[in-house]
Amino acid sequence: MEKGLIMKQGLKKSKVINVAICGGSGYTGGELLRILHNHPYAKITAVTSERSAGKRVVDIFPHLHKYEDLVYEPLDKKRLLGKAEFFFLALPHGASQEAVNFFFGNKKRVIDLSADYRLVDPGTYKEWYGLPHKFVSTLKKAAYGLPEIYRKDIKKAWLIANPGCYPTGAILGLMPALKNKIIDISSIVIDSKSGTSGAGRKADSAYSYCEVNEGFKAYGIGTHRHTPEIEQELSALAGEKIIVDFTPHLLPVDRGILTTIYAKLSKAKDTAAVLSLYKNIYANEPFVRVLDAGIFPNIKNVRGTNFCEIGIKVNKRTNTLIVVSAIDNLVKGASGQAVHNMNIMMGFDETEGLKHLALFP
Amino acid sequence: MEKGLIMKQGLKKSKVINVAICGGSGYTGGELLRILHNHPYAKITAVTSERSAGKRVVDIFPHLHKYEDLVYEPLDKKRLLGKAEFFFLALPHGASQEAVNFFFGNKKRVIDLSADYRLVDPGTYKEWYGLPHKFVSTLKKAAYGLPEIYRKDIKKAWLIANPGCYPTGAILGLMPALKNKIIDISSIVIDSKSGTSGAGRKADSAYSYCEVNEGFKAYGIGTHRHTPEIEQELSALAGEKIIVDFTPHLLPVDRGILTTIYAKLSKAKDTAAVLSLYKNIYANEPFVRVLDAGIFPNIKNVRGTNFCEIGIKVNKRTNTLIVVSAIDNLVKGASGQAVHNMNIMMGFDETEGLKHLALFP
Amino acid sequence: MEKGLIMKQGLKKSKVINVAICGGSGYTGGELLRILHNHPYAKITAVTSERSAGKRVVDIFPHLHKYEDLVYEPLDKKRLLGKAEFFFLALPHGASQEAVNFFFGNKKRVIDLSADYRLVDPGTYKEWYGLPHKFVSTLKKAAYGLPEIYRKDIKKAWLIANPGCYPTGAILGLMPALKNKIIDISSIVIDSKSGTSGAGRKADSAYSYCEVNEGFKAYGIGTHRHTPEIEQELSALAGEKIIVDFTPHLLPVDRGILTTIYAKLSKAKDTAAVLSLYKNIYANEPFVRVLDAGIFPNIKNVRGTNFCEIGIKVNKRTNTLIVVSAIDNLVKGASGQAVHNMNIMMGFDETEGLKHLALFP
Amino acid sequence: MEKGLIMKQGLKKSKVINVAICGGSGYTGGELLRILHNHPYAKITAVTSERSAGKRVVDIFPHLHKYEDLVYEPLDKKRLLGKAEFFFLALPHGASQEAVNFFFGNKKRVIDLSADYRLVDPGTYKEWYGLPHKFVSTLKKAAYGLPEIYRKDIKKAWLIANPGCYPTGAILGLMPALKNKIIDISSIVIDSKSGTSGAGRKADSAYSYCEVNEGFKAYGIGTHRHTPEIEQELSALAGEKIIVDFTPHLLPVDRGILTTIYAKLSKAKDTAAVLSLYKNIYANEPFVRVLDAGIFPNIKNVRGTNFCEIGIKVNKRTNTLIVVSAIDNLVKGASGQAVHNMNIMMGFDETEGLKHLALFP
Repeated sequence: MEKGLIMKQGLKKSKVINVAICGGSGYTGGELLRILHNHPYAKITAVTSERSAGKRVVDIFPHLHKYEDLVYEPLDKKRLLGKAEFFFLALPHGASQEAVNFFFGNKKRVIDLSADYRLVDPGTYKEWYGLPHKFVSTLKKAAYGLPEIYRKDIKKAWLIANPGCYPTGAILGLMPALKNKIIDISSIVIDSKSGTSGAGRKADSAYSYCEVNEGFKAYGIGTHRHTPEIEQELSALAGEKIIVDFTPHLLPVDRGILTTIYAKLSKAKDTAAVLSLYKNIYANEPFVRVLDAGIFPNIKNVRGTNFCEIGIKVNKRTNTLIVVSAIDNLVKGASGQAVHNMNIMMGFDETEGLKHLALFP
Repeated sequence: MEKGLIMKQGLKKSKVINVAICGGSGYTGGELLRILHNHPYAKITAVTSERSAGKRVVDIFPHLHKYEDLVYEPLDKKRLLGKAEFFFLALPHGASQEAVNFFFGNKKRVIDLSADYRLVDPGTYKEWYGLPHKFVSTLKKAAYGLPEIYRKDIKKAWLIANPGCYPTGAILGLMPALKNKIIDISSIVIDSKSGTSGAGRKADSAYSYCEVNEGFKAYGIGTHRHTPEIEQELSALAGEKIIVDFTPHLLPVDRGILTTIYAKLSKAKDTAAVLSLYKNIYANEPFVRVLDAGIFPNIKNVRGTNFCEIGIKVNKRTNTLIVVSAIDNLVKGASGQAVHNMNIMMGFDETEGLKHLALFP
Repeated sequence: MEKGLIMKQGLKKSKVINVAICGGSGYTGGELLRILHNHPYAKITAVTSERSAGKRVVDIFPHLHKYEDLVYEPLDKKRLLGKAEFFFLALPHGASQEAVNFFFGNKKRVIDLSADYRLVDPGTYKEWYGLPHKFVSTLKKAAYGLPEIYRKDIKKAWLIANPGCYPTGAILGLMPALKNKIIDISSIVIDSKSGTSGAGRKADSAYSYCEVNEGFKAYGIGTHRHTPEIEQELSALAGEKIIVDFTPHLLPVDRGILTTIYAKLSKAKDTAAVLSLYKNIYANEPFVRVLDAGIFPNIKNVRGTNFCEIGIKVNKRTNTLIVVSAIDNLVKGASGQAVHNMNIMMGFDETEGLKHLALFP
Repeated sequence: MEKGLIMKQGLKKSKVINVAICGGSGYTGGELLRILHNHPYAKITAVTSERSAGKRVVDIFPHLHKYEDLVYEPLDKKRLLGKAEFFFLALPHGASQEAVNFFFGNKKRVIDLSADYRLVDPGTYKEWYGLPHKFVSTLKKAAYGLPEIYRKDIKKAWLIANPGCYPTGAILGLMPALKNKIIDISSIVIDSKSGTSGAGRKADSAYSYCEVNEGFKAYGIGTHRHTPEIEQELSALAGEKIIVDFTPHLLPVDRGILTTIYAKLSKAKDTAAVLSLYKNIYANEPFVRVLDAGIFPNIKNVRGTNFCEIGIKVNKRTNTLIVVSAIDNLVKGASGQAVHNMNIMMGFDETEGLKHLALFP
């Protein structure tokens, strides 16, 4: 029995909000639907998909059969305005720019799961995404939706740039070290391994079963678009410019990102001391678990949940801090974090819709 | 948003029951803990494990970290009597016989997930399990916990024999056909494929990753112990003795049983007509979904849920009815069905703790 | 050390034949290249692919890097005539009809891995494949390339219709039973489970990693195009018309087909007696292994090889013969069997190129 | 067609050697049997296993059925002396010390796949393996069996310490950089990911299917026993003491190690320049492939082979060299490299038994 459920006895129906999901036929859209099905205060009133318009959600995602009569509609922004007060946008980057601007401009609360409003510098956005940012004044109003760092901003914001999956695992793994200034910021190596759902739901033979299964490879070495996002947030935490080596790899699993981080210690510390810093900082976070010394995370233990698990090791032989973080890329790395942000924005219990334990095995 | 949650506003704290789980370090025990974490009226007050006594649940199952201070204890039956009013027993067959008898005899409600109280004929039990049944009078009081067939009995029972995983998929797949007497009962072939968690959590090189992964095989052909359980229930439905060919196979997945059933039609019917019989019988069942013509189940769509999905096809060329059913062997095939039974016994909403959609992908 | 290699000391260079592969960028084409790399008498002189024309083989299949300068070319039939004397065609059905006719008509030896020349009755071909057969006189000259049944025909043939993957496992599993007339031919159920490479190498989200992994489903129930091929060959073996229930399933593995076959015995026999029939018939077959009583095949044990392993069980309770066969769908079910056929046609040792043991684990 | 096979026409039967495998029931032992089945000059005359003594090889490894009458025997060293002239030892570390010393002392050629003779300093061995080394004079005569570095020593040696799986991938990935002194040796990070067969064939619930599948984790961070072996060889290459951060991870695949290596460049170089150094050094190596710029290895492309594939990237933003290497841990990381060493020792063509291409998919 989980305490929250009993405490919810006093909930008021007036709290229920109408929610639209723009881009609901991909994995992050499907995951929003799955998670919000468990949410007592969110009612899905519209879901869009260009390629699946007219089809029922259950035709595209048989596991979402509880949305009995929910049908995909095209992204007709004006029409949607009247249907919901809260908008999740799970559109491709680029396509999200204008939609965000429209809904936000029309006084709707918006959580954007694309990369379009994450980079505060439009020049950096253009450099890495190859597109100009057309709505810089809106961009300035976006809060970066990592609650463990920006909770206060999120509370007040009407536009959230929901973090990327790799940045979530990397930033949470480094935040306490940077805040406490215990590492040499020129030495950071971030070696990440992601499940295949991170590539999205699409017809691409590179992600076909027989290509991915029993395989493992690095990709986008030094060039992955999450690099500037990671660097932006690490730099903000450190108060100085940080450049990192970030290498993503493709894991033959459905879900999960394990990130192994290396940084030289600038001050000699042992594992216990660093662990103590981490445990203090995350002590009250509902979704971050710092594991005891000698225990390290496994993506399987966070599958389907919004938890981030972190393990710490100081290698005394090399004076290196090694941090390992694990998240579910579709939950804490995308849709779960988005719902967490919604809960904060709306004043709900932060864990609403996200109370379940991992599906293991 | 899921309706049940809002309706629960009126729940009474007095409804909460104290629950003990005997045998809580295996996969079905872990799954009971996972599911009951979502249950508003069940409070886990004790969990036992001989080999892990003294360890915390989280040491054995890191994903169950919300049970912060729950510690495994040995199966000291007398001591446990004072700790709970409802007992789930996830012990090995044979070991369960006496424990069930003890708790039931001491006026506790008991759900036995082992095979010990499933076979109504002690002779059949001895023949297939190689053990005598020592508590025949208790055996007679057990209800077979398949709600779709025995809901009325379950409501009144204090002892439930929770069905086996294979029998659950096979019986639900055949029940409407047998009740409507549309098949030749001498022609039934049941070809089942189960995920590896069905073998339990144990150190056995036959179930090690490298042996199972990328492999597939049949096992226990004609000799699997679920055979008499399937036959007992099919015979009861048909009103005459049924003997079946039942072949289990080992799938390289964590969870799920897909069962493909073949039987000659005794009356010519087309797919639509048979589908109609199935849809009628299961129309009000919260956990059975009969799929539309041309759609067949995939274990991935029921993963982590208590749903049983059923697809129907009549092969006119051979006059054969082909039924495909899919369940999660650990949920509808074990712990989820057990919680469903608890809900029925206690008068809770049948879906309490079991409201979530499948984790896909 | 494998005997054949030493015996090959006396081989004559003059035996080497020039081989072309039409359709070399799919999995069966790639597998032909992999296998023929081990073949002492086959020299690949051309490989075609429309979509990859101009690219090197290693660009499309990095594991085939030993074909250093081999480049895909378009299927220019006339040009190819001068390049090779032996043609493997791994083209889509329909597309193969004319190419086969052309090369065969120009006095080339041809092995067609498509379905176009497998069905002796053009009407059946049209019914199941939706296309007329334009080259019926050529069709009549094709031998069905299952060496265990048609070795003599293959020896003399210049055109081989290489069997489908499912038919190979099903026919080999039933041949001794049908030849010995021990089963009721109206009762045959063939339940097959295939690895995902059977779907080919293509961009189709239905076969993407996240859709297939951790899933399992039936498909094409009663309508799969391998049904008439299976029935044609079983009927020929029995000497009377056979109609079967055939259900394919999609396994989350790269390779392998396990086929579980059920048929009522027309004469009472025990496992040992049936096993003896099977062992006799396959005693001298280099690629069929009939396993001892109580041992059943696993696709993992034949992975990457041309072996078919067969296990036998008589279920005395139901008077049913249960046969389980395992093959690698890309080897014995496609490219390996094609090379075996080439060896027979050319008078090579039948096992040339196919001598290796399975990759396990 | 593969050239070597034709050139083998002139082979002399007198070249055939009798080979014993001590410890033949684990994965590396099984892999030696699989590979040597393809070897024209090696005849297996004995294979040992304590737990499987008296059983046939095919009872333990069904895929090795071509060794029809080969039966496991206990490790009776004296008896084995008369049976073979070449010994592969695939025993656990510790157990190998004495056996190696015995066979080597009795004038047999020995390749030890354990860690017992890899570390030249007995003190380091004791520190990391917790055991004293009892045969230091024999230890001094062992050559480290990495042909790309020690080919000349291997040619003359009668005792080979076959490298560990992780060290093979790490050392080959760093050798050209160290030889050319282009990196800051204090900055080396080695992040490795291994398939599960690396854990051996054993009954351990930590490696059971349901624990490993869909999971991913780091283990032995900073403490893995391959660390001193890697450091010994890197130090030898650099001519000065090197200490590294080495983190192994457990991949949910059967086979393969991908190693991602990071080191700061001590001299500014671009990818092309570093690639050129690597290509030069490995130009004549039969089993190392340095991939072109922009192409990175995937373990799937080397599965079942003795190849090591290497990709190179210089990250100009961070002045870091990133090297990715891929091997099959059971082949290049164990048994294949052992056979390569045997070929060198015996003067066989270096690729004998190892000529096959990867099994893909």
